[in-house]
Amino acid sequence: MSAPHVIRIGLCGLGTVGQGVWKHLDHASAELESRLGVKLEITVAAVRDKKKKRTVRIPATKITDDPIAVASDPAIDIVCELIGGTDVARDVTLAALALGKVVVSANKALICKHGAEIFAMARKHGGHFLFEASVAGGIPIIKSLREGLVANRFPLIYGILNGTCNYILTQMEEQDIPYASVLADAKALGYAEADESLDVQGWDTAHKAAVLTYLAHGVWVQTEQMVVEGIDRLTPADFRHAATFGYGIKLLAIIARDFATNELSVRVHPTLLPESHVVAKVSGVFNAVSVKGDVVGTTLYIGRGAGQDATSSAVISDIVDAVALLRNDRRAFITSRKEAATKGRPLGDCRLAPAEHIRGRYYLRLTVKDRPGVLAQVASVMAEKNVSIASVIQNRADRPDAASIVLTTHESNERAIQATLARLAKLPSMVEAPLLLRIGDFAD
Amino acid sequence: MSAPHVIRIGLCGLGTVGQGVWKHLDHASAELESRLGVKLEITVAAVRDKKKKRTVRIPATKITDDPIAVASDPAIDIVCELIGGTDVARDVTLAALALGKVVVSANKALICKHGAEIFAMARKHGGHFLFEASVAGGIPIIKSLREGLVANRFPLIYGILNGTCNYILTQMEEQDIPYASVLADAKALGYAEADESLDVQGWDTAHKAAVLTYLAHGVWVQTEQMVVEGIDRLTPADFRHAATFGYGIKLLAIIARDFATNELSVRVHPTLLPESHVVAKVSGVFNAVSVKGDVVGTTLYIGRGAGQDATSSAVISDIVDAVALLRNDRRAFITSRKEAATKGRPLGDCRLAPAEHIRGRYYLRLTVKDRPGVLAQVASVMAEKNVSIASVIQNRADRPDAASIVLTTHESNERAIQATLARLAKLPSMVEAPLLLRIGDFAD
Repeated sequence: MSAPHVIRIGLCGLGTVGQGVWKHLDHASAELESRLGVKLEITVAAVRDKKKKRTVRIPATKITDDPIAVASDPAIDIVCELIGGTDVARDVTLAALALGKVVVSANKALICKHGAEIFAMARKHGGHFLFEASVAGGIPIIKSLREGLVANRFPLIYGILNGTCNYILTQMEEQDIPYASVLADAKALGYAEADESLDVQGWDTAHKAAVLTYLAHGVWVQTEQMVVEGIDRLTPADFRHAATFGYGIKLLAIIARDFATNELSVRVHPTLLPESHVVAKVSGVFNAVSVKGDVVGTTLYIGRGAGQDATSSAVISDIVDAVALLRNDRRAFITSRKEAATKGRPLGDCRLAPAEHIRGRYYLRLTVKDRPGVLAQVASVMAEKNVSIASVIQNRADRPDAASIVLTTHESNERAIQATLARLAKLPSMVEAPLLLRIGDFAD
Repeated sequence: MSAPHVIRIGLCGLGTVGQGVWKHLDHASAELESRLGVKLEITVAAVRDKKKKRTVRIPATKITDDPIAVASDPAIDIVCELIGGTDVARDVTLAALALGKVVVSANKALICKHGAEIFAMARKHGGHFLFEASVAGGIPIIKSLREGLVANRFPLIYGILNGTCNYILTQMEEQDIPYASVLADAKALGYAEADESLDVQGWDTAHKAAVLTYLAHGVWVQTEQMVVEGIDRLTPADFRHAATFGYGIKLLAIIARDFATNELSVRVHPTLLPESHVVAKVSGVFNAVSVKGDVVGTTLYIGRGAGQDATSSAVISDIVDAVALLRNDRRAFITSRKEAATKGRPLGDCRLAPAEHIRGRYYLRLTVKDRPGVLAQVASVMAEKNVSIASVIQNRADRPDAASIVLTTHESNERAIQATLARLAKLPSMVEAPLLLRIGDFAD
């Protein structure tokens, strides 16, 4: 028998995920090599600081501080871009793809910002860009959408894509603790970053929504084209009110496409979900993705959305797919939807749904001066904007001399509710800006 | 540009699934062909009765009644075995694999009975056998285990794998209706077969457990080597008792491996699951598979487990994978775990866990003569067998002059509980055979 072919892997970035990939690939290598019939070798790891202590033992000869050199080295077959950010990561990715390599990345911000350029570079030079770890951690959602559900079109995808936010919301709901306290705890436990804004304001979820939108529909929607609202204005009272109506609250990404009109909407916002809904039960750092396919119906995927181990699991599955691509006729790789057809038109055949076509029911929390006639004013604004009230709870607010009015509406649309919100905000009796939440009426 | 390569598909079997594959492949073909760069053509369909009316329009020239001829035709690249059963299906599969074709199958009974032979034939002649549709319908669980979670070993896999049983259990629980009535309704609605035994006695679930065991551990466990118990002895009272203890009841397949001892146990039985557990919320014809990986942690997959559309979605994803295999160096396909290593030893490095190593808590329902001293007799049998009682409910049974004693135990093991059961069954006060259910203490 001849010696097995060696596949050479370069790691760019040796932080939490990079060290996890090293550790778990080392652990699984004998089994993987016997199944793949090739030898997997991490040839080099590029780091920012060569002196830094790490939990995995890596020979000094394998460490470099030049990630571009790793990406450009003709001896390296697979480049794992685990640097994060969108600057060096972009340079590394493009340099490797220009040489026809396979790049494996967990970097949703990179894909969201430079995806069109990255995939064009891959196509041009016969390289491939794999990104299973970029959404929902260890859940194989990218492979499921791209391959397992290949027979389907996707009218609706929604899910919990940020474990930090789901942890915070779960704690607020279960422990009845204010947002700020839970956030402080989450930081102390390492569940939230020092700068939490990317997570709690919904941008990380929006990046992942952009990746799923590309996979499901082959088009690029930028985060500024989405409705993106975070969780930082929620209070424990919102959870109590929602429970009164029979709902829990989750930060969801929602990607909806009407195939009759080709209108697409991508949204990220806290959403009231019926307590009996399986996704409402997904708690703590777990992620969940619900995928409605026109053939298969609804399938749901749940798992840890982040962390060294879950992310490493996804990166290693991409490395294994990369091995198959490197040994094969690479054209046989199934491309993303209509990737070729969109040529320079980021939205391809789709257009963004106008606000009046995004329909739903709403939850409004108004903090108002505690005096007579305010509810009448609110109700008349809503009638004027043609938004019909379904239920009302009025009680004392969390602040003195103020009342809280919580309303749910019958079905309306984003344009009408935003107009209502703008008008309500101007009422002299309004003590703080109204809080708007959406109600998720998902059948599955 | 040269004309695209044509991939020729032969359908063997044109029942519900076969017609679904025809319909949905036809519908998706333009998109798939543009993504794959090949033309997909269903060249021929083999049926038992050429005269039978079908819902899809297929030219008479494409219909044959000789499936072996389809399997043996050198012009056919992919053979879809959708006949069912284990006789003709086996002949068709082996004939196609002997010619190095790719066979796509939804037939779990075939895989369970003849899997070792089928995969050996595939290896010998460079063919491939793909079977995404055989377990959990449209949920891409096979691909997830084989590829998406390739970095993992699997200490625990469990799930709801039979939609008919889950529909019956859901109806019994929600409507408080006896098993026989729900079964009759399920037959009338087409949710249960005329002969329901394969489903309700757990054999269909056991076949699927064997397939998952092969995928996860590379070994073949026969259904007669498993504990297999069905749902046909459950009563609405069991659901009420379980609810009192905070549990729902699901028919689960459980595949557990201890990697320290390499002991493997594969079981199918009705299982009490905590009401808060996500899998306990999976109702109706839906399936759910929970997969614990040593790297990724627990991931959970939920979707429709059967039906024309869900199954077709899975078959078509295999057809797309088959196209990649046909165009490529086929060795690059990742083989199943240790497939080569087991050489003639169906269990490879594993051994079946002895009954005393299968630990758990139990639920016992005893129907006894309604007279003094019976509970004392029962308690003393359990003490004698060293099975410790955790809770007891005694009340009137559903039949006259009888009482029902429902017990839960502290942790025990299969050997002790089976000995207890045998001893209890012999008590003169026992009116009918004791019913044993297992309690599922799954963390996720």
